[in-house]
Amino acid sequence: MSLQNWEHQAQKGRDILNNSIPKQWLLPADKLPPPTQKNVIALPRQSGLLSERELTITEMSATGLVAQMGKGSLKAEEVVVAFLKRSVLGHQLLNFATEFLADEAIARAKELDDYYQRTGKLVGPLHGVPISVKEHIGFKNKTCNTGYVAWVDNVTPEDAHLLQLLAKAGAVFHVRTNQPQSLMHLCCSNNITGTTLNPHNRTLTPGGSSGGEGASMGFKCAPLGIGTDIGGSIRCPAAFCGAYGFRPTTMRMPMAGIQVASLGQETIHGVVGPLASSSLEDCELFSKAVLNQEPWNNERSLVPIPWKTVTPTRDVTIAIMWDDGCVRPHPPITRALRLVHDRLIAAGINVVDWEPYKHDEGWNIISTLYYPDAGTLQREMLLSSGEPARPLTEWALAYSRPEPLTHPEAWAYQHRRDVFIDEYHAIMKRRGVDFIISPPYPGVAAVLGESHYWNYTAIWNLVDFPSVVFPSGLMVDLELDVFEDGDKMYVPRNEVDGREWGKYTGPERFEGAPIGLQISGARFRDEEVLAAAGLVEGIVRGGRVAKL
Amino acid sequence: MSLQNWEHQAQKGRDILNNSIPKQWLLPADKLPPPTQKNVIALPRQSGLLSERELTITEMSATGLVAQMGKGSLKAEEVVVAFLKRSVLGHQLLNFATEFLADEAIARAKELDDYYQRTGKLVGPLHGVPISVKEHIGFKNKTCNTGYVAWVDNVTPEDAHLLQLLAKAGAVFHVRTNQPQSLMHLCCSNNITGTTLNPHNRTLTPGGSSGGEGASMGFKCAPLGIGTDIGGSIRCPAAFCGAYGFRPTTMRMPMAGIQVASLGQETIHGVVGPLASSSLEDCELFSKAVLNQEPWNNERSLVPIPWKTVTPTRDVTIAIMWDDGCVRPHPPITRALRLVHDRLIAAGINVVDWEPYKHDEGWNIISTLYYPDAGTLQREMLLSSGEPARPLTEWALAYSRPEPLTHPEAWAYQHRRDVFIDEYHAIMKRRGVDFIISPPYPGVAAVLGESHYWNYTAIWNLVDFPSVVFPSGLMVDLELDVFEDGDKMYVPRNEVDGREWGKYTGPERFEGAPIGLQISGARFRDEEVLAAAGLVEGIVRGGRVAKL
Repeated sequence: MSLQNWEHQAQKGRDILNNSIPKQWLLPADKLPPPTQKNVIALPRQSGLLSERELTITEMSATGLVAQMGKGSLKAEEVVVAFLKRSVLGHQLLNFATEFLADEAIARAKELDDYYQRTGKLVGPLHGVPISVKEHIGFKNKTCNTGYVAWVDNVTPEDAHLLQLLAKAGAVFHVRTNQPQSLMHLCCSNNITGTTLNPHNRTLTPGGSSGGEGASMGFKCAPLGIGTDIGGSIRCPAAFCGAYGFRPTTMRMPMAGIQVASLGQETIHGVVGPLASSSLEDCELFSKAVLNQEPWNNERSLVPIPWKTVTPTRDVTIAIMWDDGCVRPHPPITRALRLVHDRLIAAGINVVDWEPYKHDEGWNIISTLYYPDAGTLQREMLLSSGEPARPLTEWALAYSRPEPLTHPEAWAYQHRRDVFIDEYHAIMKRRGVDFIISPPYPGVAAVLGESHYWNYTAIWNLVDFPSVVFPSGLMVDLELDVFEDGDKMYVPRNEVDGREWGKYTGPERFEGAPIGLQISGARFRDEEVLAAAGLVEGIVRGGRVAKL
Repeated sequence: MSLQNWEHQAQKGRDILNNSIPKQWLLPADKLPPPTQKNVIALPRQSGLLSERELTITEMSATGLVAQMGKGSLKAEEVVVAFLKRSVLGHQLLNFATEFLADEAIARAKELDDYYQRTGKLVGPLHGVPISVKEHIGFKNKTCNTGYVAWVDNVTPEDAHLLQLLAKAGAVFHVRTNQPQSLMHLCCSNNITGTTLNPHNRTLTPGGSSGGEGASMGFKCAPLGIGTDIGGSIRCPAAFCGAYGFRPTTMRMPMAGIQVASLGQETIHGVVGPLASSSLEDCELFSKAVLNQEPWNNERSLVPIPWKTVTPTRDVTIAIMWDDGCVRPHPPITRALRLVHDRLIAAGINVVDWEPYKHDEGWNIISTLYYPDAGTLQREMLLSSGEPARPLTEWALAYSRPEPLTHPEAWAYQHRRDVFIDEYHAIMKRRGVDFIISPPYPGVAAVLGESHYWNYTAIWNLVDFPSVVFPSGLMVDLELDVFEDGDKMYVPRNEVDGREWGKYTGPERFEGAPIGLQISGARFRDEEVLAAAGLVEGIVRGGRVAKL
């Protein structure tokens, strides 16, 4: 494909987006804030586009919405319209959508309302819940470009398995969201629909690769979203945008119909999971609605382990990982960890420090296993359209070896991976630790194009720990997060540490950014990790302490 | 390594074996039957080596032995001595052992007896059960050659995880058993300890790759054995030797400490599982004893699905696969399938025919994925000692592509594999079939060196169906299994079919061989498949019909 051709193809992708925008809800250009305005979180109210009722609806959790719909005090149609309006505004400000599904969503919401009116019952546990969906999760008869210009014309023959199950549970899909070229940035930028911004500060990235979802959650364009994660791609956007994100253990959530260039690659398994704008509960609502339908009966690579309801217990040992031993976290992150640490102790939880186990070796293994082919497939994907590689695509490909591994070399790495997984679990058991709280990233949301260091999240992909990101409730603070003399004296351990530490010259660069935290636990203990996240969040944010 | 050196190394392997044989129980050479005597099944009695009580003990199931030991009417020591004596004789006749563990086994049995005497209790569900173990399952501080001369000096640092669990449950390991070079023959021949023979007819193979286990079970050298299976290596020896074999779903049974050249290879997962000499119940006893110890807490690649007890039900639909559409089974196999078919119908079971789903495509996928490296690793294993490739090693390597697949090519095959797995399950569900009975091989035990066609077992590895082999109760019959005029007229579908069909010129070649059958069911329905195998065996062999 010639240069002209790839631009022509990219334009087709933009046309799909632009044609899908419900124009009646667009804020006139002269009412939009100037591009220099960083924080746009207040715009839904300030713009006057949404009524009070719509503002209230869009600030509710999925769980809350379903409860109201079950009482008949909310209709699915008004719910999806409210979120559509907020999404259109969000898109004008953040460029987070790849396609709106307004007509289908409203039609489906009306069906749900009819059903409720006829029967007095909800269709399922997600009745009327608007869900935004990362673009590479395929919809029947719609294009699915997965961030590649080469795939702009690809049409998906049927809905992804996960979408089928969510739809049966009553979900309404109203907007598809942006992702980076190659799906391998902790940022969100491609040659088709461009770059997505962070609603808390538009000079920052919403994270990636589920960056459109991060923005969607941060701006409350949906109570629930769907992301995918092979190195942090659910958790990083959740953390950067002040939302919730859940990376389940592999082989639990249905993956069929999610498009990736390297279909069949299993050196490192990607997973799909929920993001939520305002409640951890919604991550469980989502997971339970999916697993209660026993997806393993249709998708045989899944393990038949039903979702179980777990009551959180205070009789646990929680470890705090202050630093991964490779890259020192920035001051705001450390401040949030201190808050968690102190509040957990004050609440009587057994808290210990987590000494990281060979995270550098872990990164060596996982970064080698991302591209055992030396990135040839990704480069061919770009070559086949002629689109140029984005800087962070080059960055990710640079992790790979210069030459493809032989199969026996790859097997040896896979074996090292399996041994590492067993060792990490064994050490956790030996130390008597149930859950590990860690930074999701060295800092808060990165400046656009600067999100380079993955291993605060990727390490948990490697050992396949279910992991949850939740907001600490704190934001970057211009007074508290100043770069002090002691910080200036810090001598980085290595080049990478120096690069990452150098990005924090003070809180001003990250003004407005929320501070997220991550909690992880042993493989297949998804329910326990989510319950523990709820316990910790409750204690840290002071909301639920008394109840437990 | 020079030619001389590999022979020197191979001799070291033979020395380990020869030094380990408990000489006091050897039958003098002049009392052994002539090498031309094919069937040696009667030798334990004829030889006079074993007492009546020892003969009785060695013909009991593990379940029966444990029950007697629980009552105090049998001691672990006499049990293991009886099986050791039978094993020594078996080895003289069949060359099935790679190392005897007589001293350790007797010492352990004495400990168990002491424990019982002190407490009146059994150590665990496998208290005092002698188990033979395929050589590549590593024992602490013992060599583990995995069939390669290059590894004759390899010493294992600790017991394989599975052995640790079985030992905790009370098992006693008394003999390690032979395997073919490369582990990829349905036969049992290597350059270290040579070729293992079938006790029912010594011109036939006991099957492979767990061929030593096949001979061990067929000659009743142990009530239980441990094999591994990536294409039929548990089931083929069980079928060829008139025993039971259970290939579980992948990721249930602990694999850590089982040595293979391609550690970390996961294009096709191998599994470990039990063989049993006289009872299907013993396969469940084994599986339950292992999974009740929750091995997933130490080996994190396993899925945390406990063993559940299933009551077999007659309310099932069982399909008979008469032919895989690629290679026509030999007359004895078809006769056994007819018997099963008629008896199941007579017993009121819903029986249908199974039309195989693209088994040729299945073979294309699995045979490509065995050696995505074009067999380079296997060839390097041979080159590193200088040992020559055995004919069936060359045969297996010939399945591979001439050049290694690129990683993206391998991923594409892996994706085809996953799609095939889903399709196979979907078709089974659509047809309303619960279990499929099929031949384990086109014929009964193959003539030594002739076991070429794997896909009656490998297809179930590909789709990851748990599968059980059990004896039909029939043997090759010189009158019933004659090659009739109709058979002579058969026009093979293709070259492979012609080759396999040509091997059956009449029953004489296979005199004495038992006829085994295979039953398979959906992934992760291990318990149901074992229960169904029990139901079918009971009906076919007339033993348990009335009870159900």
